[in-house]
Formats: sequence, C-alpha cells, structure tokens
Amino acid sequence: MKAILLKHTADAEKLAGVAAFTSCSPEGSDELMNTKTKEECDKFLKRVLNYGHHSVIEHASFTFSVEGISRACTHQIVRHRIASYTQQSQRYVKFKELGFVMPPSIEKNEEAKKIYLEAMKNASSAYETLLNCGIKAEDARYVYPNASHTNIMITMNARELWHFFSLRCCTRAQWELREIAEKMLAEVKKVAPLLFENAGASCVRLGYCPEGSLGCGRYPTLKQLKEKEAN
Amino acid sequence: MKAILLKHTADAEKLAGVAAFTSCSPEGSDELMNTKTKEECDKFLKRVLNYGHHSVIEHASFTFSVEGISRACTHQIVRHRIASYTQQSQRYVKFKELGFVMPPSIEKNEEAKKIYLEAMKNASSAYETLLNCGIKAEDARYVYPNASHTNIMITMNARELWHFFSLRCCTRAQWELREIAEKMLAEVKKVAPLLFENAGASCVRLGYCPEGSLGCGRYPTLKQLKEKEAN
Amino acid sequence: MKAILLKHTADAEKLAGVAAFTSCSPEGSDELMNTKTKEECDKFLKRVLNYGHHSVIEHASFTFSVEGISRACTHQIVRHRIASYTQQSQRYVKFKELGFVMPPSIEKNEEAKKIYLEAMKNASSAYETLLNCGIKAEDARYVYPNASHTNIMITMNARELWHFFSLRCCTRAQWELREIAEKMLAEVKKVAPLLFENAGASCVRLGYCPEGSLGCGRYPTLKQLKEKEAN
Amino acid sequence: MKAILLKHTADAEKLAGVAAFTSCSPEGSDELMNTKTKEECDKFLKRVLNYGHHSVIEHASFTFSVEGISRACTHQIVRHRIASYTQQSQRYVKFKELGFVMPPSIEKNEEAKKIYLEAMKNASSAYETLLNCGIKAEDARYVYPNASHTNIMITMNARELWHFFSLRCCTRAQWELREIAEKMLAEVKKVAPLLFENAGASCVRLGYCPEGSLGCGRYPTLKQLKEKEAN
Repeated sequence: MKAILLKHTADAEKLAGVAAFTSCSPEGSDELMNTKTKEECDKFLKRVLNYGHHSVIEHASFTFSVEGISRACTHQIVRHRIASYTQQSQRYVKFKELGFVMPPSIEKNEEAKKIYLEAMKNASSAYETLLNCGIKAEDARYVYPNASHTNIMITMNARELWHFFSLRCCTRAQWELREIAEKMLAEVKKVAPLLFENAGASCVRLGYCPEGSLGCGRYPTLKQLKEKEAN
Repeated sequence: MKAILLKHTADAEKLAGVAAFTSCSPEGSDELMNTKTKEECDKFLKRVLNYGHHSVIEHASFTFSVEGISRACTHQIVRHRIASYTQQSQRYVKFKELGFVMPPSIEKNEEAKKIYLEAMKNASSAYETLLNCGIKAEDARYVYPNASHTNIMITMNARELWHFFSLRCCTRAQWELREIAEKMLAEVKKVAPLLFENAGASCVRLGYCPEGSLGCGRYPTLKQLKEKEAN
Repeated sequence: MKAILLKHTADAEKLAGVAAFTSCSPEGSDELMNTKTKEECDKFLKRVLNYGHHSVIEHASFTFSVEGISRACTHQIVRHRIASYTQQSQRYVKFKELGFVMPPSIEKNEEAKKIYLEAMKNASSAYETLLNCGIKAEDARYVYPNASHTNIMITMNARELWHFFSLRCCTRAQWELREIAEKMLAEVKKVAPLLFENAGASCVRLGYCPEGSLGCGRYPTLKQLKEKEAN
Repeated sequence: MKAILLKHTADAEKLAGVAAFTSCSPEGSDELMNTKTKEECDKFLKRVLNYGHHSVIEHASFTFSVEGISRACTHQIVRHRIASYTQQSQRYVKFKELGFVMPPSIEKNEEAKKIYLEAMKNASSAYETLLNCGIKAEDARYVYPNASHTNIMITMNARELWHFFSLRCCTRAQWELREIAEKMLAEVKKVAPLLFENAGASCVRLGYCPEGSLGCGRYPTLKQLKEKEAN
C-alpha cells in the first residue's frame, strides 16, 4: 500500500495566508502576495485556523497517488464528495493476476489465512477462466473480491483533507482507510506543516471524543468533560 | 434488482415552475406559489428547460431505494458527487448468505455460468468459515465478490438526475448501472413527467452522440452532423 | 423580511430514520419503509444523531421562500455551496421603486436614519433617471444599494441546514442573516421537530463556544472548559 | 479590473495526462508520472478531452486574484458552487473612499454618466457620514452601491473552469463577468495551453448555440443545424 503526494498547489501555505489577509485588507490578493512576508502570512494563518476558520485553506489543493489498496477501501474513500478521483478501471484493465490486500486479523490467524489465500486463488482462477470463455473483463471482474488491488488518484483541498483526517485517522475508522489517511497526513505535513499542524483524528485536536459512547476511550466524551466541570 | 422511488419533494413540478418565475418577477416565491396556476407554471418551466436552463429544477429532490445490485455497480454510482447516499454496510451487517448479481453475458454462456456459480459458492463459504474462525464481518467481507448484493438509498435533485440519466442511460454505460438508471427514470416520469420529459441518454435529446468516435452509431456524431450541413 | 417553508421532502423524518436502518439491516429501504414504525425510526434516528452521524438526514430536503432581505445578505447566503438557489434578478426585473432594508443600528439613531433614508431616495431616483436616459435595468442597478430588497428561493438538505444554523444562529453572524436563520429554523421545527431538535448555534448544542476568543462570552471556550476540568 | 493567476497545481497538464492513463493502466499514478513522457501524456489527454471526458482535468486547480470588480458581479460569480472563494469583507474593512465600476453603457452616455457619478458621490458621502454618526462599517455599507469595488480570490479546478468559461465567455453573459472570464481564460492559457485549448463560450467549441432562440445569432441553433441536415 502506498500513498504518495504527487503534486500540489505551489506555495500552498503562503497562498492560504494571503487568502486570510484578503478578507480584511484594502489590497487585493496579488498585491498582498508581493507585500506580505511568509512570516506575516504564517502568523496570521495560524491565528485564523485557531478560530476554526478553515475556508482560506481551501485554495490549496493536494493530489495523491494511492496504490495497492482494496476496492473495499476505495468504495469508502470515494464517498468523500468534495474531492476529485481517477481510479483504475476494472472495466478497461484486463488483469494478468489478482493483486490483493490481506486484513491483519486474517494475516495473524493461521487457519483464516489459509482459507483467505485459497479464496483469492479461486477468485483469480475463475476470472481467468471466464476471460478464456470469451467473457469480457468488465463482466469477469464480478468474481473478483473486495480485497482486489486498485490504484486511485485523489485530489482534495486542505480543508477537505482536514475533514478526511478527522474522520479517518480515528481508531473507529476502517483499518485500511485509517492506514492510508495516516500516510496521506504524513505526506502533506512534509510540504505544508503549518497548514496541517493540528490535523488528525478529531479527538487529538478537541481534547474530547465527538463520537460519544461509540468512542475508543482514549479521550473523554464531551458529556464527561462537562460533568467534570460541573463538579 | 429494484429501483423504487421512496419519497420526493412535494409538488415538485409546481415548485420548479415557481422557481423559474421567481428569477424574473417582482413577487416572491411564496406569493407566486399562491397566484400562479399549475398550467402557467408548466408552460413557463417547459420554456426554460428548452433553453437548457436547468438550475430551477434543483429545488426538486427524489429519493430512491435501489436494492439487490452489485457493489461493482454502487462503486460507480457513488462517484456521482452531487447526491446523498446511505448504503448497506458490509462492516456492520453479518450476511447469512451471499446474494449476488450475474452478468447477462455469463448467464447465457453455459460454461461461464458454471464457473461463476462455483466462484460465488466458494466466496460464500470462505466468508462463513472466516466468521467461524473468529474473523469479524468487516474483514471477512474482503473475500466477498464485486457481484455481492447491496442496498443503497439515493437522493438526487432533478438537475443531477438529468445529468445521471444523460450518462447512464447511454449504451456505453455499464449494463447494470444502465438498467438501474432506466428504472429510476421510469419511476420519476410517473410523478413528474414534465420535469423529466426529455431526460435520458444525451443523444436522444441532442440528436447527436457527444461521445464522438466512441459512440454506438445510433446517432451521428456532432462532427458528422456538421459535415452533412456543410455539404 | 419573510422566511417561509414552501415545500419539503414528504415524510422527511421517517425517511431519515429508514436511511439509518438501511446501513445496518439486511433489508432494503423500501421494505424498511413498510415494516418499521415511525416510533422505531424516531428512536433510532435520535440515537444516530446523538453520535453526530448526520449523513442520513441529507435525504430530507427543504425549500424556503426568503423575501424582502437585502442583497448584502443574499451575497453571504449564497456562499453556502451545498444548496440550490433561485434569486430575483436585477438584470431582468425592472424595479418600479426601491424596496430596502434598514439596519436596526441606523433605525434607532435619528441622525443616521435621516442620512440613510436620503441615501435610499438618491439611489432610487438615480436608477429611475438612468432608465429614462435609455440605460438598461441591468446597468442602472449598479447604483442600487446593498440594502436593496431581493427575493430568493433556497433549498438545503437537513444536514446542510444544521451547518447553516450552527454558523448563522450564532451571535457573531451578521444580524440580518441571523434573523433569517432563526426564522428558517422555526419553520423546519414545525414540520420536522426531531430532525432539528438540537439544531441552532453551535454553542447551544456543544456547551462551549467553538470560536475561541472571538466568542460572545455566553458560553465558555473549549480551552476554558478543559482548564476547569484540570482543576 | 484585474484577473491574475496567482498560483496553480504544479505540472498541471502532466498531472491530468497521468490521471487519464491511471484509469486504464496496470501501473499506479506515481509510476506513470515517472515513466510517461510529457508528449505521451499530452497526446492521450488530447484524445480524452476530445471524447468530452473531462473528469481527469479536475486534478489541476487554479487560483486567481480578481480585483476591482463590482459586488454586483461577485454576487453572480459566487453562485458557481464548485469553487473556493475568499472575498474582501465589507463588514471588516472600513473603506476610506468608494472605488466603483462604471458600466460602458453609462460611460458613453453623457447625461447618464453625470447622474451615475453623482450617485456614487452621494453613496460615498452617506457612508462616511454614517461612520461619523457612530454606525459600524458593517451597517454603513448598506448604502454602498452594487457598483462598489471588491477583491476576491477564486480557486477552481480545470473542469469547473471549462464550465465557467462555457457560460461566462458567452455574449449573453453579463458584460462585467464576461470581461473577467475572458481575462481568466487568457491567464490559464499561458500556463496550460493544452488543458484549455478549446475552452471558451460553448458555441465556439460546439459549432452551435445551446441557448436556442435566446442566442446572439453568431452560430446556428442545434435545431437549425439539424434542419439543414435534413434538407
């Protein structure tokens, strides 16, 4: 599984800082881009983000190559609607062999692993035989498992990434998606550390778990926080 | 496979007609709703739609229950981003048996059909055995095939539905998705015939195929249309 | 100023409840609609909303007629992008007289009020004279003030409405927009009390102000809440 | 009036080409980025765009500083919902003098121009006097005209820009918005000529006017095109 930052908006952080200034300055963004220093921009951006005003970071957009993940996982990912996707097609790509993901819970269970590998082999061989029967790849793929490898190019702006990380870096997220989210977060932190300074699972930033009784217990719920306060 | 219209915006057509009047009237929508007759609304709406001005039909929203389709198909559907979805979860639902879709090309090929049914049986039994090994449903489902049945509730507004039908009622669309799109179109035509009067594959409305050389040949391409004109 | 609920998705609350069941049931939404009672739906929906899982309420959509508000205000409203709008056009409507909004701060300041009314009169008369000079309405309107009355039809789904109310029922929101948001909230509460039970400014629901030091002081900030807890 | 391209996705064209390859290649986007030449990418992208498949160009995003346009115009611009905006606030910026736009139809009409300039002067002086009466900028601005200058930072992806240019480079578009659209198009053509090769008013690309009888007559309507063909 790979999650690589391919390209992104040039000068993403400065751009977001200039956006922040644009809303409250007599000058336009072009002049602000030339007159404000990176330091001034960073300082103001930090302040704005602390107020929870995230609209200015939408101007910065990030494109990832996510490879070798399951279609179970991409089916969840593409439910994030404020994003652009281009995915490897099972209609147009005829696969030579079945690449697949194995869940850790299965990996570490000898018996389960054996069954799993056999299931993959069966699916793979059914696909091949169907192709040999003259069935098109787009129909043969119906036997391919949820585990099947796929590649997907994902573009999200920084604000949507924050939202994505809030939900998907959470321990309640599906394990595979969480792994990808963590990798994507590590990637963007390299090029835009300020933009993503407090990004991650909601709890880390909030200090409480917004999922209420569904939470993992790492952080108190908001209710617990308020009860403690009341005492 | 079922596609049933569950609920929709009350008085959808009148609402769209009133919207059309709102943009060019001194009166507000509430007054227009009371003073304009359905006939006046219909007449004006028709005119506006003929100009290709579809924004007013966004106010009408339609919710479908789509059942017994494959996850291969829903993975495509949810790529339509201007919509709301609630899908049966393979993480939270533990399946007693594998319901699945069979592509017609496989159905009518004796040999392929045999292989396919066996593949389904294998996947189904692997899933069960994994559950018995103590693997959670959310991980066991990795062996489930693309063909697996799923249910999904879909809400789209009329404008997005037009767009959806343009692409998905096309002969180039994946067969399963096309079948659903045709059913959804039939459903909405029952309750809002005017709103969806010319909805369907792009070619039917345009009189040419916008896919160029990829087209099915049923309609000329735009290039061919223009060449004929030039002669 | 008026904000009237024109139309909405039929059985909005039941639909949202059925959506909630759909994600975790073997049955499809159509069957659930027939077998689950309104009470069962309400109970489950309430639970789901308490976890902060709001996606299921997107299926319910609400259309408002908002009338007699300023274009200053609609310019802000239409920045909410997950919504559909049809607005009275200043390009196509030729106004007989200038309807306008007066800010309360001006209304209660004798001197300011006098200046304001004169400014409205000047703008109105300039518009008329421009029309008489043969200038089209779409250009004459450049002299019309931000205060000018406009009508707008707004459709939002329940999830976006929650978001809209969170931001716009806040004391920090612009006064005119806040007034409209409060009216819209009152309207939807009449027809879908459960869907909007805890909707409103974020603080009322959270018990703290998410705006940090920008807040009005009515509720503690999250930082203050946590500091109290630490003691 | 200025429309300046501030920043954009690095290697926008190559990225779109790699996206196109991603959907039909065994390799992931990262490898494709390294192995495909710009020429290969360009050739394939061109083909894909000719089929009308524009989803791959969504990965490329462009940020503009648009300055010195009227709020009449920005009110229209922000109706494009698949975009990110940061606009100069009339709530938070206290203006020293009123900058304003003058429609050409007024500019060239001596009498109208005189009235217009006086209207601007009146509005400007009313604003100042209101501030002096102790009215806040956010309320004083209600007397400011639609013509008032504003600055706005706009980010759109290439697909939305195509859509924006289709509508707004059209002769039927409001003159001010059309001027900005043309400037924005010129800007992006400099850095991504292939991505925007056929971008512009719909008619230029289609060879017919999609607005039917509302059109300017520069191109035949589709109906006319088909009638000619029939003869």
